[in-house]
Order: sequence, then C-alpha cells, then structure tokens
Amino acid sequence: MKRIIIQIHCKDKSGIIASVTDFISSGNGNIVYIDQHVDREQDIFFMRTESEFESFSMATFKSKFKTELANQFEMNWEIYNAEDKPKMALFVSKYDHCLYDILGRYRSGELHCELPLIISNHLDLKPTADYFNIPFYHIPVNKDTKAEAESKQLQLLEKHNVDFIVLARYMQIISGRLIDRYTNKIINIHHSFLPAFIGAKPYHSAFKRGVKIIGATSHYITEELDAGPIIEQDVARVSHTYSIKDLITKGRDLEKIVLATAIKHHINRKVMVYNNKTVIFY
Amino acid sequence: MKRIIIQIHCKDKSGIIASVTDFISSGNGNIVYIDQHVDREQDIFFMRTESEFESFSMATFKSKFKTELANQFEMNWEIYNAEDKPKMALFVSKYDHCLYDILGRYRSGELHCELPLIISNHLDLKPTADYFNIPFYHIPVNKDTKAEAESKQLQLLEKHNVDFIVLARYMQIISGRLIDRYTNKIINIHHSFLPAFIGAKPYHSAFKRGVKIIGATSHYITEELDAGPIIEQDVARVSHTYSIKDLITKGRDLEKIVLATAIKHHINRKVMVYNNKTVIFY
Amino acid sequence: MKRIIIQIHCKDKSGIIASVTDFISSGNGNIVYIDQHVDREQDIFFMRTESEFESFSMATFKSKFKTELANQFEMNWEIYNAEDKPKMALFVSKYDHCLYDILGRYRSGELHCELPLIISNHLDLKPTADYFNIPFYHIPVNKDTKAEAESKQLQLLEKHNVDFIVLARYMQIISGRLIDRYTNKIINIHHSFLPAFIGAKPYHSAFKRGVKIIGATSHYITEELDAGPIIEQDVARVSHTYSIKDLITKGRDLEKIVLATAIKHHINRKVMVYNNKTVIFY
Amino acid sequence: MKRIIIQIHCKDKSGIIASVTDFISSGNGNIVYIDQHVDREQDIFFMRTESEFESFSMATFKSKFKTELANQFEMNWEIYNAEDKPKMALFVSKYDHCLYDILGRYRSGELHCELPLIISNHLDLKPTADYFNIPFYHIPVNKDTKAEAESKQLQLLEKHNVDFIVLARYMQIISGRLIDRYTNKIINIHHSFLPAFIGAKPYHSAFKRGVKIIGATSHYITEELDAGPIIEQDVARVSHTYSIKDLITKGRDLEKIVLATAIKHHINRKVMVYNNKTVIFY
Repeated sequence: MKRIIIQIHCKDKSGIIASVTDFISSGNGNIVYIDQHVDREQDIFFMRTESEFESFSMATFKSKFKTELANQFEMNWEIYNAEDKPKMALFVSKYDHCLYDILGRYRSGELHCELPLIISNHLDLKPTADYFNIPFYHIPVNKDTKAEAESKQLQLLEKHNVDFIVLARYMQIISGRLIDRYTNKIINIHHSFLPAFIGAKPYHSAFKRGVKIIGATSHYITEELDAGPIIEQDVARVSHTYSIKDLITKGRDLEKIVLATAIKHHINRKVMVYNNKTVIFY
Repeated sequence: MKRIIIQIHCKDKSGIIASVTDFISSGNGNIVYIDQHVDREQDIFFMRTESEFESFSMATFKSKFKTELANQFEMNWEIYNAEDKPKMALFVSKYDHCLYDILGRYRSGELHCELPLIISNHLDLKPTADYFNIPFYHIPVNKDTKAEAESKQLQLLEKHNVDFIVLARYMQIISGRLIDRYTNKIINIHHSFLPAFIGAKPYHSAFKRGVKIIGATSHYITEELDAGPIIEQDVARVSHTYSIKDLITKGRDLEKIVLATAIKHHINRKVMVYNNKTVIFY
Repeated sequence: MKRIIIQIHCKDKSGIIASVTDFISSGNGNIVYIDQHVDREQDIFFMRTESEFESFSMATFKSKFKTELANQFEMNWEIYNAEDKPKMALFVSKYDHCLYDILGRYRSGELHCELPLIISNHLDLKPTADYFNIPFYHIPVNKDTKAEAESKQLQLLEKHNVDFIVLARYMQIISGRLIDRYTNKIINIHHSFLPAFIGAKPYHSAFKRGVKIIGATSHYITEELDAGPIIEQDVARVSHTYSIKDLITKGRDLEKIVLATAIKHHINRKVMVYNNKTVIFY
Repeated sequence: MKRIIIQIHCKDKSGIIASVTDFISSGNGNIVYIDQHVDREQDIFFMRTESEFESFSMATFKSKFKTELANQFEMNWEIYNAEDKPKMALFVSKYDHCLYDILGRYRSGELHCELPLIISNHLDLKPTADYFNIPFYHIPVNKDTKAEAESKQLQLLEKHNVDFIVLARYMQIISGRLIDRYTNKIINIHHSFLPAFIGAKPYHSAFKRGVKIIGATSHYITEELDAGPIIEQDVARVSHTYSIKDLITKGRDLEKIVLATAIKHHINRKVMVYNNKTVIFY
C-alpha cells in the first residue's frame, strides 16, 4: 500500500475537484485526505489530497496525471510518496538554541526527514553536531571568499541530494545563486513579527519602539531581505520591564517553536507557495 | 444558482470521498468547498461539502442522496441551502454584555441568521431588546412555575419556527424537555475553561485555585451540567493582582467573543457533533 | 479618607524610592500600592504610588512635593485624587463596533470616567449616542472646512472640560493643533500590529503580505502617523482561509478589546509616557 | 556592593511599606526594586524588594530585621543574596524533551543556578547527562524499594546541599517525606491545564472531552496529587484534527516552556507561596 500526496494550484475553474477525485478513483486510489482553498481575490484554486494505492508506479502516474488532468487545467502540481523522507541541510553560525531544538526533535522521531549534514561558517557548534552524530562541515565565509564558500556549499548540498535547507539562525545573507537552486526550499527564522522590524537587530528596534508584543517569523528566503512567503509566526506578550536582553531570551523560545513548526509543515508537504504567500493545509 | 451544504459522518470506509464527489458531479453540481476528517481512535469519517447547482430541488436531491449514497454507507447526514438563514432565539437573564455583543453583530450583518425573539426570566434587558427592535418575551421562572414556564417557552419557539437557541448568560438550568426538542441546538457560554470549574461561580473557584490563565467555553447543552460538546474555547492570562471582580470583568470579554464565534460556526453549518465532541470545518 | 496617586519619572539616582516613601509617611500618608521601574538603556527611573490620607489638601501637598522632593530629583510628576473621574470625549465616524463596546462598558460601570460628549463627522451613529443618552455633536469635516471644524471641536472640548480624547475608529487625521493641546491624551486604535502596516487599509496589506497573525494597536496620537507611544496591542491567529473581509471581521474583535484596555489603563492613571514609549504599572 | 532580596508576607496593616523602606534606608541600603500586593479577599500583604548595600553582613541584617521589623508585623520573610546561585536537582525518567530544554538553557547561562546532579529511576538519559557533564545517579524505584530509594535520594540531595528539585517529567509519585523536607521547593510540570485533567494520561482525557485548547501547568508539589500552588501555565489551540499523538507532541512544547519559566521565577526569588497559591513579582 502506497500513500501518495498530490498538491495542485491553478486558475479557479468549475469542475476541478470532481476531475481530480475522479482521476484518483479511476486509478484505483482511495482518497483518505482532501483539502482545498480558493483565493477569491486572485482567483486561484488550491488542492491537496492523500490517496492510498495497492500498487503504484510514480513515473506512470505522473505521466497520466500530466496528460489527462494537469494540462487541461494548466495546473502547477507536485506528487510525493508520503513515505519518502526529504533530506534537510542545516545552516548554523554560533547561536545554538534552534540547533538544539531541531536536533532534539529529529532524534525523538518528531521530524519525518533525513539530516545528512550541518554547514557552518564557524566551528562553535561542531561539538553539538558530533554529539548527535550529524556530519559537520566548516565553511568560513567572508567578503572575499563568499562566492567560493557558496560553491563549496552547493557542492555539498548536491553531493548529499539535499531537498531543502533550514537556516537555523545562520547569520549570513544567502545569495541569489542558492536561492535560484532551492526556490521555496530555504526556510529562515527571523526574530521579529514580520513585516515589522526587517533586517538586523529586531529586538533592539522592538525595544526602541516600545511594542507590547514581540514575534518570530519563519519564511522561505527570496532575494528581497525578510520579504519571502511567510510559513509560520508566533508572538509573546512583553512589557516595559523587559530589557533588550530579556526580549532576546524570550524571543529564543518563539524562534525555536516557530521554526520547528515551519519545518514540520514543509516536511509533511503541507505548504504551497504562490505570489509570495503560502497556503498551508493543516 | 443554488449553493448546497452537505454534512456527513459515518463509520470510515474506503471510497466514501469519491462516492460523494461522484454523486454531486453526476447531479450537475460543482463542488466549491470540500473538507474531511477521520477520527482514527473511533474510526469515524466526517465530510462537509459546498456545491453549486444551476437548478436544484431539495426534496428530490435528498431522496436521491438517501437511496443512492446515505443508505450504503449508513451515513448521518444533513443537507442545507446555504442561503437559508437559521432562526435564532436568545435566552437572557440580567447580564447584558453577551446580549449587546450579539445584537451589535446581528445588526452589522455579521450573523447570517434571523432573530425572531428574545426570552428572559427578568425584565431588565427589555429596553435593550426594544432599542434593537427585537420582540422580547418575559417568562418568569421559579421552582413552582418552571414546568409551566418551559411550556410557554416551547410554544413561543415553535410559533417562531426557531432553529436553535443561544443561552447568552441565561442563569437557569435547562431541563431535558427542551434539550430533547433541540438536541445539539442549544448553545451555552460557560465562564470557565471547561472541564475546569464546572458549575456555579467559576471565577471564585479560579481565584481560590490560583490559576494563571482563565477561560470561557461555549458548548451544546446536554443533560449533564457543563458537560456537552465543546464548540469553542478561549483564554486570557491573569495574575495574582486580579481580584475576583477583575477576573469577572476580564472574563466578560472572553465570554462575548467565545460565544459569538460558536454562534457563527453553528450558523454557517460548520459544526458536526458525535460522541459528545465536535468536528468544526473552518 | 482620600486615595492619592503619584506618578514620577526622572533620571535614575540612588535613594529616590526611600525619599518618596519617606515624604509620604512624614505627611501621614499610608502607602497602599507601590511600583517602580528603571529603563537601564536610558537610565530613567519610574515610580507610581497610591497612598491614603485622613485629611488632604491637593494644593498644599503639590507645593510641598515640588519644593521638598521634585526639584531635588528633577522629576516629571503628576498627582491625582483617585476618586476623580477624568472626562472622556469620543470621536467617531461611521464604524460602530468600538463605540458600542465602549458605551456598553461605560454603562456597566466598568469605566471610571465621565463621558460628556461624542463628536462625529457623520450623523450615522447619532441614534446610538441617543440610546445611551450621551450628547452627540455633528461636526462635518472636509478639506476646506478642516481648520474651522477643529476650532469647533476645541471649543466643545474646552467647554466640557475634557481631559482626554478617544478616537474610536475616527477616520480623520488629527492635526498638530489638537495634539499640542492634548499631548499624550488622545488615544487611537490602529487596526494592525504596529509598526507593521502603518497607514490606510492595513488588513488589505496584511492579506497581501500573507501574515499568519493579525493585530491591533492602541497608542497616543503624535504628529507622525501611527508612530505614537504604544499603550496596548493584541493579536489573533489567521490563515490562508481568511479573505480580506474575514480579516476585517476578526480584527474588529481585537480593536474593541485593545482600545478598551488602553482606555482603562489611561483612566486608572497607570500609564506614563517618555521618549515615545509607555510604562504601564498594572 | 551586595544586592539583597527581601520577601515578606503577613496580615495587611497600615504602614508596612514605609516601615520596610525606612528600615532598609536606615541600614544604608539603596532600594532598586520594590513591588507589593494585597490579597483583599484574605487580607494578606506581600512585598519584595531588592536593595544594594556597600557593606553587608547577612547574619547581622537578619537579626536586626527580625527584632526591629518582622516581629512587630508577624511577618513571614526570606532574605537572599541575589548573587547566590541556588542548587537545583533534576529528577527524570525516560522523557527527554524537558531535560534537553533545561540543560540547553543551563549551558547558555539563562539559568542563574547550579546543577550538581540528575537523579533518575532509569538509565535512558544518562548519555544526555554525560554530554552536558552533569553527574547522573541511577536510583531504580519499584513498589518494594520505594522507601529505600527515597532514602538514597535524600542522602544525595543533602550531600549536594540541594536547594530545590525539578521534576522534569519524573513519572513517580513523590512521598510526604521528600515533600516535608522540600516544602514549596519541588517544582513539577503537569501536562494539562490544571485543575482540568488531574492525574495520569491528561492528553487522552483532553482528546476524549474534545477540548479546543490544551495546556501545561507547573506547580509546587504537595501531598494532594496535582493540587499544589500553581507557578505558571500556558496553553495552545488544537482542533479535531489533532490525534492523541498530535496532542502529546504539541504539549511537549508547552511543557518545556512552562517548566523553564517556573524554574526561572523560582531561581530569581520571585515566587511567594501562601494558602496554596503563588504571588509572583515579575
């Protein structure tokens, strides 16, 4: 028995849901999950199904799906085997709270993914990687070596067949070269409630502005800084009694949970991206 | 063009989703919304669809639905015309915060329902009903007249073809007679985070127990006190600085919003009840 | 027995708390509430006390406070009689949800203030004001009459000895003339989580940006749009299923509660403003 | 320069605040933090101060405090040197999420305490303790050996001068012997929103009851199960889509943060306990 996930989005038209359910049934699939959404402002249809098949050939199914269904509705689509574990690469610098959190969840089995490597521009977190038995690659980055460092990163990512990248408080700007290669596949955690406090030192800005609530935002990286499609956000109440250091400490808890939630949505093929926004079928 | 809502639940079996979508398509319906859920602990399948039909006869559709689909899967099902506004009766006593809130929402068009009457055991809120032009019926209740009062209530409800009842801080126990007549159709707001602090004076109990968070719960009334299927809950953070009076004041905001949310879910045919729990397709 | 509230802020120095408590005790006051805060980034000290006096002359007390205490520490200070109810003016346009909410709380006794008048640039909400028996003044505003309208507003505010103004979704820019006269005394509700989505149509911007949480912010008006000291914020979780209209509806609940909370903090003399931020002693 | 924390509670009387501030000033202390609260239902006064002294003898200060102040008002009181790090013992069984979280925070310097030992009834988490270089003691517990095991625990706690104990999902009932020795010094994390779902398997009960929000509660252990003074609670929204396993996973995040917050309040001497409730001066 194979469980197959189908993600679709396209211009909204009459009859899509019935066409898709009919297609799956006629291929002897049993639909066990179905969700759909229409963005009425932009007239875009979204759908996600999970179906069970006694016997299944991915190549044949995709080919039939394309010719019999996708072409007709001009669909954007992805088809996954639910059992396949996507391969995640972690990028870190010196902050360890998100790394710990992700590795703890990974080891406990909470994350349905493989974790072939951790890449860092510093050596500080190597002992943590070692403790969890994850290969750790140290690729220093500075202004002069940035292009060269990225080539090394890309080589490693290719070599390990990485499917998506998580920037677990990796304090470097990602260039267009990596973004193009992993479009909507690089997950960042920004330590503010975007679009408030874009850029560096958001907790300092939050302190200065005197906000009563702080936040964290996980989003896919795009070329524009902190402006990519938002996957998850969460907030915490603060007050005048919080110093900048207190905001940073409180924020760490938000960052951990928001990033972990975003990773899980991505891994479980729940996220669809369009026009710089996400549709997430919980 | 008619928009038709179908709610289904039954024992989980293979092929239900395809059967339902096929049934709708073959009747020239276009599915515009579909959601489903399986409770794997109890092996129960739930589904909710909205479909558009150029021409539609409710009687014919229901009859075909029953013979061609519902019987086969032993479904519990409801079919609604999305345009039909359910008729709501409000029961109140002396507290006015929930009443104001509901009437304000009603007048602003936020609630897709009719409001033919307000029933109260006191006269205090008659001026409010008058201001909003809602017929107000004063039916006093005491130990001796309770049965008689209920007969009067039932008569009024029947006369106005009431579909569901909202107890907007109505401080009387509802007897089995009304509950049987309006099963899963009497919405109550309880001023605690159920199942904590069942019964009278929950804010006093919360104060005594020293909780750091208070809540409110909206649920369908069942014979067992405060034990019916939960529709909506919300909470607010409190601290030792809150007196009982502060808890009551803070709680009023929770009560208003939780009750309004529950009403909207009910009106929009989003709620399905089974085994004393709710499935709510947002 | 008189209860006196003292608010102080000044450069942080050693010995302030003891000096203040000593001053109160030596004047036969019994301190029943005390709270203090130091902003260590800016080295500013804040303090709020409530004290009970058997006999009390405000003029004498203020004079002694100034010469014996305030001058020495170069304090900014305010002294209030806790029983005095500040006079609030409401400015509204056409949206009624905040107005209803405030009037409901006012009538229930939740707000320790007087409400001598409502001013509006439209007539739509006059019936609501009438129902609650609050004098309603219609002062139309357009580009040509703006200066004249403001003069009328100021006249009314002076005539009624208004202490502070609440903009309950009043859809007009307030000019410097009013702001100068009522500095840190004009409370606005902005329908976003500031500093995100400054300006008009924040729910449209939130929809476009695809945020997963929306917010509302109450702040004192300053000359710079939506940039004044924040008094209160709250947020609500949303998802891709929310249309702009859904965001607006959900946001109304936030706006009501956030504005009411800010009003209560202001009325209860809990708010101190400095450097465009607030310190709020709950 | 020494920073001294004083915690006081006693029957409410006139003049306490002034007496305490006067006592500190006359001892050449500079008050840098002061907070107070009165429980008006029970007429109990609470106060917490932090003061700086150029020179300070704890023994002398306590003696003077007792004779000159505490006896007069019949105070319950504690005096701490803010620099002193309390010694924490962790009790764990097999769940590692709270342990990881605490150890990560401990290593990052977030927790102002010492951690001389971890005690467990199982060996599963020894490698984690080893990685963080914390001595790990394996003391198996079963019905027959419970008394003996507790003696061993008490011996270890005494030997390491442990000040307080954290049950980081330690799945054993703590007996009166330990509770008497460490009254209001044993912090537990219960995986429900107490007082809802006392006892074992609260997530199963929450699933069965169909709640829309789950919670976690950290409290001091008392003889009555899950009924001790609550230090901190937090909640998370869930829905019908959450299986029991999903509730458990989501709940882990709550447990971690709620327990960590409670530990920090305790370590920073912010918590005062009376009549089975806490006052926490943030």
